[in-house]
This record gives sequence, structure tokens and C-alpha cells, in this order.
Amino acid sequence: MNTSNAQSLFAAALVVMASSTTTCSHADDPLASWNDTAAKEAIIRFVEKVTTEGSADFVPPGERIATFDNDGTLWSEKPMYFQLLFALDRVKTLAPQHPEWKNEEPFASLLKGNVKAALAGGEKAVAEIVMATHAGMTTAEFETVAARWIATARHPTTGRPYTEMVYQPMLELLAYLRANGFKTFIVSGGGIEFMRPWTGRVYGIPPEQVVGSSIKTEYEVRGGKPVLVRLPELNFVDDKAGKPVGINSYIGRRPIFAAGNSDGDLQMLQYTTIARNADDTTPRFGLIVHHTDAEREWAYDRDSHVGQLDKALDEAPRRGWTVVDMKSDWKGVHPTERR
Amino acid sequence: MNTSNAQSLFAAALVVMASSTTTCSHADDPLASWNDTAAKEAIIRFVEKVTTEGSADFVPPGERIATFDNDGTLWSEKPMYFQLLFALDRVKTLAPQHPEWKNEEPFASLLKGNVKAALAGGEKAVAEIVMATHAGMTTAEFETVAARWIATARHPTTGRPYTEMVYQPMLELLAYLRANGFKTFIVSGGGIEFMRPWTGRVYGIPPEQVVGSSIKTEYEVRGGKPVLVRLPELNFVDDKAGKPVGINSYIGRRPIFAAGNSDGDLQMLQYTTIARNADDTTPRFGLIVHHTDAEREWAYDRDSHVGQLDKALDEAPRRGWTVVDMKSDWKGVHPTERR
Repeated sequence: MNTSNAQSLFAAALVVMASSTTTCSHADDPLASWNDTAAKEAIIRFVEKVTTEGSADFVPPGERIATFDNDGTLWSEKPMYFQLLFALDRVKTLAPQHPEWKNEEPFASLLKGNVKAALAGGEKAVAEIVMATHAGMTTAEFETVAARWIATARHPTTGRPYTEMVYQPMLELLAYLRANGFKTFIVSGGGIEFMRPWTGRVYGIPPEQVVGSSIKTEYEVRGGKPVLVRLPELNFVDDKAGKPVGINSYIGRRPIFAAGNSDGDLQMLQYTTIARNADDTTPRFGLIVHHTDAEREWAYDRDSHVGQLDKALDEAPRRGWTVVDMKSDWKGVHPTERR
Repeated sequence: MNTSNAQSLFAAALVVMASSTTTCSHADDPLASWNDTAAKEAIIRFVEKVTTEGSADFVPPGERIATFDNDGTLWSEKPMYFQLLFALDRVKTLAPQHPEWKNEEPFASLLKGNVKAALAGGEKAVAEIVMATHAGMTTAEFETVAARWIATARHPTTGRPYTEMVYQPMLELLAYLRANGFKTFIVSGGGIEFMRPWTGRVYGIPPEQVVGSSIKTEYEVRGGKPVLVRLPELNFVDDKAGKPVGINSYIGRRPIFAAGNSDGDLQMLQYTTIARNADDTTPRFGLIVHHTDAEREWAYDRDSHVGQLDKALDEAPRRGWTVVDMKSDWKGVHPTERR
């Protein structure tokens, strides 16, 4: 090999190395589905700040608590909350055991396929549907039912499994926070036992890190075997002012990072981020997923029945919360779009 | 150096190495405060079984959930529950703000130092004392009060800080389980917010892994600052049949290891260890701390008002639960005894 050849080879190798470095850098980006906008930059700056040892902003790993709303924050919530779609499916499945439903609202309308008429009864109708479909069995039986539904049901407009209606950028954010010593929790208005069977697999969040709404349960020994029976009685509503209550009850410490998408998350965002006094200088991060993308997902905020975002959107600039513009901040929305 | 000297030195080195190996082996014993009896052997056999990869008994780390009662299982509970002693101290502290207590039971008797007469009112009296001392402030204020008490109060008969009334062998058991991939939880009838300020430091158990009884809280914004106010209303009693309910609610999965000391833990032990069906072959461990040591601690079981152990003691042999005889199974009881 002459010198010139060697130089050429060396130059070629440099090019290969450089391009492979670029490729690696791209593949290694923990937030690869986020565009390089202010939102992504703010997240990274915050995480680097609280994880830099010796810095005044350093937060010990145990205190790196991050809480995430679920509906509209980690997965979609249109045309209605997915758990409500689960409940409607359950009504159809259980109908043969309840001949009386043919003449009783909200069930009669539901069984005729008229969801709108069924839900016209408001919260009372929803509560009746939830209790009829979520109570009266053991926790183990309900877990089986929920797990089977999530594995087989399909979203009414996209035809995809519900677990593919999650947001790829948020999956990356969860993993990025965990890789930086954060403990990630779900704090959702949804049913705690509806979520737990699949949050580990889908979000990497184990059952003990899921906070949600619940009905009461009762311990019984049936045929010598201990069971917990789900009672048709509300236990806790983990929404709005209930979210800080749920955080305190289940987690027992104040998060340093909270993410939501609606006014149902307003109090969680306040509780997480507002400094209590002059000594309270720990950096804190509030994030709002703003649904601005009618093409890839849905666009809605102030006037939406599901996931209304009004007060929290007004409060965001004053509190320094990062409002994620789904359309411009995310390269892709759902995981399937990146395949 | 001649051969003979070299041989002597070599022999001496062997002796040193051997003795240091012995010392190491002793120092490395994760259950050093446990005598080498059947109880210790059963614990080690169980842990080795569920952590042996490829074995039929292997349990993945995420499912290695271990739950521990607190009063009488991790720390002492005589002459009465320590949290009740905290409440009595609080009554004295708060008395100047409540002149009416001088003429109202159970407070009047308490302030005269007659605890027995005060508690003669039974559960109602206890509830009044608890609400008067545990409610009506923010969660942050209560945390400060509980943390200050635990740091300064002294046990009435031993004169030691309450955090030195913990059981050294149980601290070792907690650490041993965690070193083997277990996630350790407290599941106590005691107040969840009474325990959380100190369980991390004392037991290595963070706030989010503490399950306990609770009163209701309410979210408020006071002077622009979010607070949670503790209301004089019971939320959840984490005792007896409430323990499996609490485990399901807070942890969301069934433990494979549970430790208690009284009939208040019976349902937790049943829920944890009783196989649900023929497919339920996961190894499970039930442990009962039996208070048999009147010299180093207290001796009580079937007839005790605090920590009564009767039904669970009868059920233990049939269920295969390991009953720890404090007197013969433990080398030391409290940490100070090993100094």
C-alpha cells in the first residue's frame, strides 16, 4: 500500500466513523421522537440539572418522583375514555345474564347501540354502568377480564389495539426519566385495577406505582381460598383536587415532575410545582400535553367534553409549565407511526 | 530466609487467612443476629429457592414483594402502641389551646396522668384522642410534629429513643431480602403518615412503600400555596381483614413473603400464603414473631390486649408459617444490645 492509498483509506475511515457517530448519536437519543424544540430542551435541561452531583439543584434519586396522568397524557382519550369503551363492551357481554337491562336505562339505550342516549343520564348513568361492569366479582376475576379486553379489543376509529394508542414520545420520556434515577408513577382518574394489568408491559410502570380511582373491596375466604370482592361502592376519585390527595396517600412525597393534559391535572401540577416557601428551592417541572394535532391524533382543548384543557392552559405561562404542542413538538405520535 | 522460616511464615499466613476468613464469614452473615435454628434456615432456604434462576421455584425480582407489619414485628409495642404514646404526648402539648379538655373525657383523665381511665372509653375514646391530635393541620405540619417526636421522645420503661426499640434481627431480614431483589413494604395498622417520616432512615423503607391506616385529607390553596389538610374523618383502617385490602389497594399484587406478630396479621398471612388453585405453585413464606422473651423484651401472646396472638398461632402449623421464638431464635433483640 502506498502513502496515497493509505491516506485515502484513512480519510474513508474517518468518513465512516463520522457518519456512524452521527447514526449512533441519533439512535442513542433517548427522546428520539421529540423534535429539537424548546419543550425537549426544557426537559433535558431539567433532568441534567437535578442529576448533577454537587450542584445546588441536585435531587437525590429517592426524591426524583415523577407522576403522569394517563388518559390524554400517555395514551389517547378520544372518542371517549377507553375505560368507558371497556365498560360498554362489558355491558354487551353481561347482557344475557341481565334480561332486565332491556328495559332499564342506561343499559337499554346502550344495548341498542345508542351510547349518546345512555350517557344522557350524566354522572349517575356512568356510575351505574361502572358499578354494573366493575363490581360484583373478585379482584383476580376483574384482572383477568381487563387483561383479556386490553389484549383483544380494538379502537373504534383506528382499529388498533388500545395499547398502540399510547404516545411514543411519552414512552421515551418515561424511560429517559427512569434512566436518570426517577421513579415514575401513574396518577390517573381511571380505575387503578383497570390499569395495573398492563401498565408494566406498556409503560414500564409496575402495579405498585399506579395510582387511580377505586371502588371498595372486601376480604373473604371462599371455599378455603382468600379473595377480595369488588363492592359497588366508590372508594376514591383520583381526579382534580383528588390527585394531590392520591399522591400523598399512595406515594407519600411530593413529586418533582408532573405531566398532565387537562384541567383534571391542574391541582397535581400546582401541588408539584408551586414553591411552599423561600426555602423550597428544589427544581420542579410541570408538563402539559396539548392536543393540537387533528391529523395524527385529535385537536381539542377548552371546549372538549373529554380532557378539557382551559384553566391549566391559562395558568401554564405564569407557573412556567412546559406546554407540549403535539403537532410541532412530536415527530410521531403513536408507536406504529415510527415503524 | 531459610526454608524453615519460610514454612513458618507460610503456616502463620494460613492461620491469619483462615481466621480472617472465619471473621469475614461471620461478618458477612446477613442474618448475624439470628441463631442457627430452624427459623433462620427456613428463611435462607426460601430466599435461595426463589432467587435461583432456571429453577421451577424462581420468582422474577419484580414479583418478590415482602410485607411487614410494624408494631410488634419491626419494633416493640409495649406498654402500649408507640403511636398512642405519641398521641398522649400531643394531648399534653396541645392542652393550653384546649382549656375545655380539663372537663372533657377522655382528655381530663389523660391530663391528670390517668391513662387507664382515659382509655376506659374504648375505641371511641381512642378515636377522639387520635382525631384531636392527628387532624386539623396540614400534612406538612403533621410530618414535622411526628418527625420531631420520634427524634426526641423516650420509651417510658427503657428510656431509649423509640427508633432504638426496633428489632435488630428484623432489620437484618429486611436488608437480606432487599439484597436478594425483594421490594419490602410496611403494612401496619398504625398511621401511614406517622410512620413515613422515619421508616426510610430506620428500616430502609421509603414513604411510597409504607401502607397504613389513614384519615381523610383535602386539597386547599392557602395564601397561594397548595396544602393538604388532615380532616377528623377516618379514611382506611389497615388492620385484620383491612390488610389484604390495603395490600391490593397500595401494592396491587400479592406478596410472596409476609411477616406479622398478632391476629391483626392473620388475614395478611392467609392472603399471602394460601394457594388459590393447583396452578398456584409459587413458593410463599409466612412469618410470625412470637414474643417469648420477658427478659430482653416482653412475653405475651393469647391474652395480651396489645398484639394478641391466638388464632394465627393456632393456624401457623397447618399453614407452614415459621413462628420465630424471640428468646431462642434471636441472639439480640434491640440494636443497642449488640453494641
